[in-house]
Formats: sequence, C-alpha cells, structure tokens
Amino acid sequence: MADYEQPQVDVPAMTALLDGSYVEVRDLTRKRLVEYASILTDQRDLDRGKFRERVKDVVVELAGTGQTGLGFPTEYGGGGDIGASVAAFETMAFGDLSVLVKVGVQFGLFGGAILQLGTKKHHDAYLKDLVSGQLLGCFAMTETGHGSNVQALGTVATYDVETHEFVITTPDDHSRKDYIGNAAAHARLAVVFAQLEIGGQSEGVHAFVVPIRDAKGKVLKDVRIEDDGRKIGLNGVDNGRIWFDGVRIPRENLLNRYADVTETGVYRSEIDNPDRRFFTMLGTLVQGRVCVGGASINASKVALSIATKYALGRRQFGNPGGPEELLLDYGLHQRRLLPLIARTYALHFAQEVLAGQLHAVFSATAEVDERTRRALESRAAGTKALGTWHGSRTIQECREACGGAGYLSANRFDALRADTDVFTTFEGDNHILLQLVAKGLLTDYSSEFSDLDQLGMVRFVAGMAVDTVVEKTSVHKLLERVKDILPGGDDWAQEAEIVDSEYQLAMFRWREEHMLAGVAKRLKAGMDAGMDPKEVFSRCQDHVIGSARAHVERLVLEAFVDKVRATPDGPNKSALYLLCDLYALSAIEADRGWWMEHGRLTSSRSKAISKEISELCRKLRPIAEDLVDAFGVPAEMQAAEMLAPGTVEGQRM
Amino acid sequence: MADYEQPQVDVPAMTALLDGSYVEVRDLTRKRLVEYASILTDQRDLDRGKFRERVKDVVVELAGTGQTGLGFPTEYGGGGDIGASVAAFETMAFGDLSVLVKVGVQFGLFGGAILQLGTKKHHDAYLKDLVSGQLLGCFAMTETGHGSNVQALGTVATYDVETHEFVITTPDDHSRKDYIGNAAAHARLAVVFAQLEIGGQSEGVHAFVVPIRDAKGKVLKDVRIEDDGRKIGLNGVDNGRIWFDGVRIPRENLLNRYADVTETGVYRSEIDNPDRRFFTMLGTLVQGRVCVGGASINASKVALSIATKYALGRRQFGNPGGPEELLLDYGLHQRRLLPLIARTYALHFAQEVLAGQLHAVFSATAEVDERTRRALESRAAGTKALGTWHGSRTIQECREACGGAGYLSANRFDALRADTDVFTTFEGDNHILLQLVAKGLLTDYSSEFSDLDQLGMVRFVAGMAVDTVVEKTSVHKLLERVKDILPGGDDWAQEAEIVDSEYQLAMFRWREEHMLAGVAKRLKAGMDAGMDPKEVFSRCQDHVIGSARAHVERLVLEAFVDKVRATPDGPNKSALYLLCDLYALSAIEADRGWWMEHGRLTSSRSKAISKEISELCRKLRPIAEDLVDAFGVPAEMQAAEMLAPGTVEGQRM
Repeated sequence: MADYEQPQVDVPAMTALLDGSYVEVRDLTRKRLVEYASILTDQRDLDRGKFRERVKDVVVELAGTGQTGLGFPTEYGGGGDIGASVAAFETMAFGDLSVLVKVGVQFGLFGGAILQLGTKKHHDAYLKDLVSGQLLGCFAMTETGHGSNVQALGTVATYDVETHEFVITTPDDHSRKDYIGNAAAHARLAVVFAQLEIGGQSEGVHAFVVPIRDAKGKVLKDVRIEDDGRKIGLNGVDNGRIWFDGVRIPRENLLNRYADVTETGVYRSEIDNPDRRFFTMLGTLVQGRVCVGGASINASKVALSIATKYALGRRQFGNPGGPEELLLDYGLHQRRLLPLIARTYALHFAQEVLAGQLHAVFSATAEVDERTRRALESRAAGTKALGTWHGSRTIQECREACGGAGYLSANRFDALRADTDVFTTFEGDNHILLQLVAKGLLTDYSSEFSDLDQLGMVRFVAGMAVDTVVEKTSVHKLLERVKDILPGGDDWAQEAEIVDSEYQLAMFRWREEHMLAGVAKRLKAGMDAGMDPKEVFSRCQDHVIGSARAHVERLVLEAFVDKVRATPDGPNKSALYLLCDLYALSAIEADRGWWMEHGRLTSSRSKAISKEISELCRKLRPIAEDLVDAFGVPAEMQAAEMLAPGTVEGQRM
Repeated sequence: MADYEQPQVDVPAMTALLDGSYVEVRDLTRKRLVEYASILTDQRDLDRGKFRERVKDVVVELAGTGQTGLGFPTEYGGGGDIGASVAAFETMAFGDLSVLVKVGVQFGLFGGAILQLGTKKHHDAYLKDLVSGQLLGCFAMTETGHGSNVQALGTVATYDVETHEFVITTPDDHSRKDYIGNAAAHARLAVVFAQLEIGGQSEGVHAFVVPIRDAKGKVLKDVRIEDDGRKIGLNGVDNGRIWFDGVRIPRENLLNRYADVTETGVYRSEIDNPDRRFFTMLGTLVQGRVCVGGASINASKVALSIATKYALGRRQFGNPGGPEELLLDYGLHQRRLLPLIARTYALHFAQEVLAGQLHAVFSATAEVDERTRRALESRAAGTKALGTWHGSRTIQECREACGGAGYLSANRFDALRADTDVFTTFEGDNHILLQLVAKGLLTDYSSEFSDLDQLGMVRFVAGMAVDTVVEKTSVHKLLERVKDILPGGDDWAQEAEIVDSEYQLAMFRWREEHMLAGVAKRLKAGMDAGMDPKEVFSRCQDHVIGSARAHVERLVLEAFVDKVRATPDGPNKSALYLLCDLYALSAIEADRGWWMEHGRLTSSRSKAISKEISELCRKLRPIAEDLVDAFGVPAEMQAAEMLAPGTVEGQRM
C-alpha cells in the first residue's frame, strides 16, 4: 500500500536500483556514449552515405573496446556474459540508434546466428573476427514477400551431391532478401535462410553462410545487391536487397547445430518434427527481441527526460501581470507525461525480469527444458510488443508536449521517433508477436505445430475443453491467490482499496483469465458451428491479441510490484509505490470499458480511479525531475538545443 | 437506418459527392499536382538547400497559374472565391506538403494578414505582387517564448512621433520570432506582430509590415535572421528566427484596418476593448486553421489509399499449400483500416460544412454578427484539432500496417507522417484550441475577455448558474429533439437500434451536454471552495478539453448524417450509411467507458456495439478499394514503390 506523504527521491540510489545487476556495464556504456556524442549532430548534418560510414566506424571502434562483444564466449574475444550484453545494448539506446541497430545486426543477428546455429568449425572460422568488428556480416532472413511468415521463404539451397556444394538461388522477386541491415554497403558475409532441397526433397528452412563481397567490398559474382534507399529513420544503417543466382558454397557452410547434410546428401537432425526444428533454431535468436524491447524502453527515457525538463522551464498563460505558469503545473500536462514516466518504470522492471530469465536460460550448464524456452520466447515477444509500442507513443507524446520546439531536429525528438518507429514492426511485427503469446497460453506452450500457424491453434483449442485450456494457464492459479488475499470473496472488485497493489493485481489477473477463456470459447464455438478455421481465427483475432496483451500487462505489473516490495523502506520505496499505483490505475482506466462490461468495475469506482490518477499526478509533480534524472540518461544524450544552459527555453525562472 | 445488402460503390459518383461544390477546382488542382509529381522524389533525393529552392520554384510557378490566389480579390489578380481557395488548398495536400505549407505561409498567412488586417493602401502596395508570387513574405507572430499565448508577445513597436516611424525591437531572446516559415531564405517582407507603444503607453499587439531583405535577398540592416535548421519534416520550407534591433518603418506600415495611429501619435480604434480588438484581428485569420484541418484529412486519404491497396495485394500465412491470405481478410487488419476510412469520410463532410460557413462569413456583403464569427472560429479550431490528430494517427497506423515496406521512404509514409506531424501543434496547439472551443460553449461565445484567458473563463462560469450555462448551449435544444424522436422517454439509450443514426446522435448529444454541465459544476464548486482559479482550471483541464472534443465529435456526426440523408437513394447512399454507422459506433466504442460510467450504456449493449463494428468491417471489406479510390487521390500521388505495377507487392494474385 502506498505511503502518501510528500514523496522525495534519492536520485543516485534510484539510478542504482534501475541499473540493477549491471551498474558497471551501464556506467561504462554511458561513458562510451559520451565519447562519441558528436554522432548526434552528425546524424543531422552528414548526408546518408557519409553518415553510414561514420556509423560503421563507430561500431568498429566500439567492437575494439569489447563493448559490443559481451555476449560472446571469452575464447573468441567476447565477455561471456549474456546479461551484461543485454544491459550494454539497452543502455546504448540513449545514444544514436543507427549505431545501436548496426550493432544489433552485426553482433546480435549475424553474430548470434553463427554462434547459436553454427558449430565449432563456424565459431573458429568467424567469431573472433566478427567480434572484433573486422568481419562484417548480415542476417538475410526476411524476403520482400515474406516478412512475418518466415517458414514460407522462397530462397532455395539445393545440395549438389557431385560437388558437395549448396547452390543458393532466388527463384523470383518475391523471394529477394529485403530490408537486410549491413547488406547495402558493408557486409562481406550473409547468413542466408533458405529452403534446403536435397534430391528434390524439401527439408525446410536452414541457415547458410554465404560470402557476398570480397575483402575490398566488391559484390561477388552471381550476387546482386540493391540499396533499400532512404528510410523513415536509421539512415546510418545500410539496408538492402539481395538476389542469389546459383551461388555455390561448400557443404560446410550450412550452420549445422540442429541439422546436417552428409557428403553423400543424407539429411540428419536430432529433431524429427520439421516445425519443431525450425522453431528451435529461431528460438535461439530470442535475444534480438529482448534487446529491441529494452532499447525502446530506454529511448522513451531520453524523450521523457527532455520533455519533463522543458515542461519545467517553459511558461504559458496564467498569472496576469506575473510570470506565466510552468507547463508542468497544468493538470493536462501532468496527465500527459507522468503516467508515461510511471509506465516506463514498470516496463523497465519487467524488462529486467525478462533479461534475467534470458541470461539464466542461455548461461545454464544443464539442458533447459523446452517449455521453459518457449515461455521465455513468449515473454520476450510480449515485452517487445509492449515496450516498442510504449516507445513510439511516448516519444510522440513528448514531441507534441514540446510544441513547435519539439519539431526541430536539434531538440532530439526527430531522430528518436524516426529511428524507433520501425521497432514496432521489425524483429517480429507486434501483432504477430502477441498472437504467438496467445498461442503459447492457449496451448500451454505445446510445440506440436508451428509457432505461427494460427489455424493449427484454432483446431488445437477447438479440440480441448475450455476448462482444460484455462486450467493449463498459470492465470488460474493466480486467481486462487486473489481469493486468498483479498477479503469479501467475489466482492474484492468492489471492496478493496484502489491503491492496494493486491486489488490492482487481482484486476489484471481476472481480465487475463476471463479473456483467455473467452477466446477459447469463441474458437470452439466457431469450429463447432462448422465455420472455416480461417474465418474463425479472423473473427477472433482482436480478442486473441487482446488476451495476450492482458497477459503481458499482468507480467509487467507483477514485476513492478515485486520490485517495489523488495525495495528497502525509504523515500524511493514510497515514490515507487506512487509510480506503481499510477501505472496500474492508468492501465485500468485505459481499459475501464472492458472491466465495466464484465461486471468488475462499478461506474463510481471507475470515476474514483480517474480522480486518483489526477491526484497521483499532482503528488508526483514535485519529484518529476528527480524521477527522470534517475533514469541516468547522460546530459550529452539529452542535448536538446531548447534545454541548453543560457538559451531561453532552458532558463529556469 | 442502414440498408444492409452487400454494398457497392459508384466510384465516380462518390468522388463527385466528396468533391462537392468545387469539382472543377479540385480536378484542376489534381492535374497540377501530377504536373509537378517529380517533387515527391526530389523530397527524398535533394539536399535541404536544393529542395527548398525547388519548392520555392514550384510555389512561384503555381502562383503564376492562379492556383494559389483563388481567395484574393480579382482586382489584384485573385480568384475572388474563398471556398474555392480552401478546396484548392485541401486538394494540394495529396502532394508534397512542403509545397502546401509554403503556399499556406505565403498566401494564407502573409497574404491573408495583408488582406484582412491591412487597408486599401496596403492592398495596392502589395497584393498584386504577392498573389503573383513575385513578392515573398512571412508571418512573424510566434516567438520562442510565446507560442500559444500570442497576446503576451515581447516584440515592441514604439511610435516615434518625431519621425513618424515605428521602431521595431526584440527586447530579449525570449522574444525573437521563431519557427517563421519563409524567414530563413526567401521572404522580403515580414508581417510582424508586436506590442504597440505610444508615449510609454501600451496598446496591445498589432501587425506591421517590415522589410527584412532587399530585392537581391540580402538581409537588411538591424535585422538578424537565423535558420531553424533541420526539422522532423517540411524541410522544403525555410523556417527561421528573426531579431529586430530598432528597425524603423514608416507609420503607414501599420496594418490599420482595426486600429490606427495618427501622425501626432494618437491611437484610434473602433473597438474599445483591447482584448476584443486583438481577437477580432486574429479571427480574420481563421482560414489558416480551416486549411490545416482540411489538409490533414486529405493527407489521411493518401495514406489510406496506399495501405488499403497494399493490404489487398500482400498475403500472409494461412492456406497451407495454397496462396496465403490477403492481409485485408484478417479481422484485425479490417479493424485497423476500415474505421479510419469511415472517420475520414466523416471528417471530410464536417470539413465541408466548415468551409461552407467560412465562405459564407467571408463573402457576406452585409456585416456578419460577432457571435456568428466566434462560432465559426470555434468550429474551425475544433475541426482542426480533430482533423490533425486523425491525420497523425491514420498515417502512423497505415505505415505500421505495411510493416517493413512502410518504413521505406519510397513508399510515401515517411514524408506524409513527418510533414504532417507539426499540424497538431501549429496554427494553434490542439489542446489550446479545444480549450478555446470549450470556452466558447461555456460562455456562449461571449467576447468580454480574451479568448485564451482560461482564468477569466473560470471566473465567468463560476459567476453563473450551471443551468444557465447549459441552457445557453445549443446542445440543450438538441437534447429535446432526442426525446421527440426516440421512443421510450429516457429509455432511448437502452431501446433504440444501435445502427439507428438517431440513437447515435442522441448518444453524442447526451455526452456533450453532460460533460459541459459537469465542467461548469466543477468550476463553480472549485471557486466556491475558495480555491485559486489557476488550481481550479488545472484540475478540470482534461474535463474541459474532453467536453470540447465531445462537442466537435457531435458536429462531425451531424455533418455525416446530414450528408447521408441528403444523398439520393442508390448504392452510394447505402455504402455511406455503413460508413456512418461504423464511424459513430467506433467513436462510441472508443469512449464506451464514459457512457457506462454515466449510465447510458449497458454492458451487453456495449458488447453488441463492438460486435457490430466487426460486422460492419466485414461488410465494407469487399468495397474497401472502391471507398479509397473514391477519395480521388491521383495515382501519381500514391506512387509507393511497393504498389508499382510489376513489382512483387503490387501483384494482385
């Protein structure tokens, strides 16, 4: 329960709390960001070609310091610490995001594929040079006609038993590789995902190492590369299209951790089910999604730091004769910024839990069971979706809250919003990711069919009793806890205090359970009525996605509540309680129609929640600046012209 | 009531319906857009300096054709038709938006100020050359420290009775003119808004014609200009900052339609109240807001045309073995795009009503009463707010609905979203504009105090009986109509058909009346409790803005319903009914929490509305392409690479 004295913040202690287990890595990253801070102006001033080169140079330089290789084994020059590599990556999102994404492409996607899908021979051949930034590569999965449904890729790798080579071919323009980072200018190697064919038999999608440029940067024979051209943002990353016209690579270039082809053309894999095999391969690349979500949350911190300071310097209207009112003294402005600050804290702590689970799974010495891996993938997908939507929304709101000044590139929002905009649709489109989350919940992370096959899910769920579906989800157990903790049996929804975390958790858990059960019922009813599964799915799709969102929101709130409870008593704990209440109640307010529809929120209680939110905003107003300072965004990364000391907007009157 | 057969669209007839009274002007504008269509690629390919020059050249060329001068008197080379000039401007929003905004700056703001605030001597001196594009100017109102509160501008114009000159001075950096379009490179004249001082006495803000560059483009003595630098978008417009260091201009350069200074320094105005005088001056510039709202609505049409066609060409998942499903066959995708199409139609018709009222008021031969002018300004403010928010939201949703392809600049969304982004905060920040709307409603368009003085409004409302406030609003009368038309007395909210326009109108009207009355009560209660008016306003601010939004939404729905009812029976009328239902029900769904809180929506009815929305989306799905084609966006303006014939994404399989 929140302690409602006038809150205060111990800023350094709050920053330490946010930095968590990786204070040193985050601090070192902050220092490095400051060292290449001039890239923020280069981003505005250099033309696309020059900026790309500048970004590449920074990335290679960073690689030299060890900053970008923390997740690789120490024997190849890496840091051997997955959690540290996520922390470093997230923190880099305070700075230029082309640098961040190029790092993600080179070390996360390209390097990650070699590490996770390759075996020792590939590690020995490539890892040292790619970790040091001497060997640049790209991750050639997405095709123009296949973004989300990667199992249906068109590129073909045919095994030639005579020469012991694979022949890589792009059969049509639909199947050209597209939006591939590092492809248009810098990559020498590509990890290419293609349909493996042996003697006319298709074995599904596998990954191959394919050279695309020589050491001098010349594109190799039978490879065609085209620049994707200017993009909304991230113009320091060279995205491109690749066509392969019968490119021959040695048999050894198949990344063969999960499947191999013998010299004589016999296909071998320890995983029999081709769907399971493919999604096991993909699952090893989950770190990318974890990183993108974390980056979005941190980009939000930059925007909120700037917009909050602007709102504490800028005056408007009021006080006839005297100075005008500070923007942040307006109720509306408080309502615009403070719930976003609260949600940023919430997502930060949810991301911390996720990154911890990632570290545990990928650092485990014993084999990790498949269900745990699937649950991790699901949580990564859901956190990525919520984190990236939050990033887009927050940065946009911050830009608008700074009016005309927010529109000038010198005030940072331009690059922030343009660069992060793609995060909601890359590394998995957010809607598709939430479908994956829902499917995990509805099938209890069964791996009997492809992760992305919604029709399979429809049939699976339709074949079960609804009770079984709900029983299998962990929500059900959580609901029982609700009843144990909150008094009044089923009356908790009316009788608990609204600023009681248990009440808020109960609301979130109840919604999740009810939505999931509702989806299961609708899927069954549709199938029972003899409807086409496609139609059944299409009609329930927003409900499916809504239930996944409800699930992830619950995880976020739990992470926040757990963190607050674990914080030692003191001003920061009190401030965090206010933030946690504000996050939870804002989320309830945003979806209050749903709870009212389902009899879990009376109209008077709903109004009381809205009133409480405004009250919480007023209480947090005096510590708004401390709350954003605690994010620990270096001043150089908040280099908005309108905040510079001595300029008019930066004057604190 | 909607006719629910499978709908069809007569596309040319629907376009004609949308084009309304200005078919010819809109057609001619479309042709001109196509003539300079290459600017869409120039926007991506040219550097900022060159693109600015290109944009300027296009603007001057358009001026030569008469395209941009339709609103000016014929004796100065104009077209003498305000309505036509709005139609032409709106239609230009299909094309490059830097061109549009530069046209707005030159002919709407600069030219509009000379025309509306000046007298014959100014018209004779400047209009002919500015209409022909030979004399470029800027509108120097906004200052770095004063965006929304323009009455508090810092620039001073002191009358020197010795030399019969005004001396224009920028007292501090807060008061530098900022974000001024045309200032950084092209303007020779500036209309400068400054505090008029005569003999130590301040007479409030007035507008003055101030030369800032010579004929060769050299900045004049005592004028300092700085480039605002790169912006999120609109980089073809040269925004800048201006400082004046005692710049002397002849007495005649005061734009003296509403106030004048005699040679001997006597101030004269027919409007005694200085607030009223200032807002009368500002009110003459209302056309700018009308134009920006219309432009946003039309920019949405471009985005929706592209995203809808993409969703009808792009396939994803489903159909094992066969072709994948079209994006638009997914329920979620329908839910993402179709309500936005419906709302675009709704806003289009609301904008048509507004433009018609603008034309009537500004073309009237007799004096128009002040209340009518105020109501027009309020409607312009509200429509601008809703139209520009809709534009930002729609374009963003369309970009995300096209995934990675949407992120490439060649697919149009980049420029569309970046260029329109500032529309929500320029020509009046949307929140400030909605406050103005609420104030008009709460004070029955009283002009006793400044339009933007919220504290004055608080005191005014607190001094009235709540019943009086509500009585004075036109909503009250509308509510009585509800009771006449819908059966069941107060049970209409439960008993009417949800697809009955009367039900939907009743819901919108009831919300507006209830919110306004609620705001009035809260303002009174706060003042009665002895609270500081600033605090009273701050606490009610979101409620104030919410009530204004409810008011404008009601106007939009009324405009749409009126239009549908006036449409001759036939397929288009049926299609419009479906769209109108979809718009109204989507708006109710979005705010369903509010209606449930206030006892006007049961939970079962709320669920029925959500179900009906999905049903309407499915019904509209087969005519989605016709509905966007009817917008009449020239193919060249939908020049998204991903839709080009022959490219993979454009193939209709």
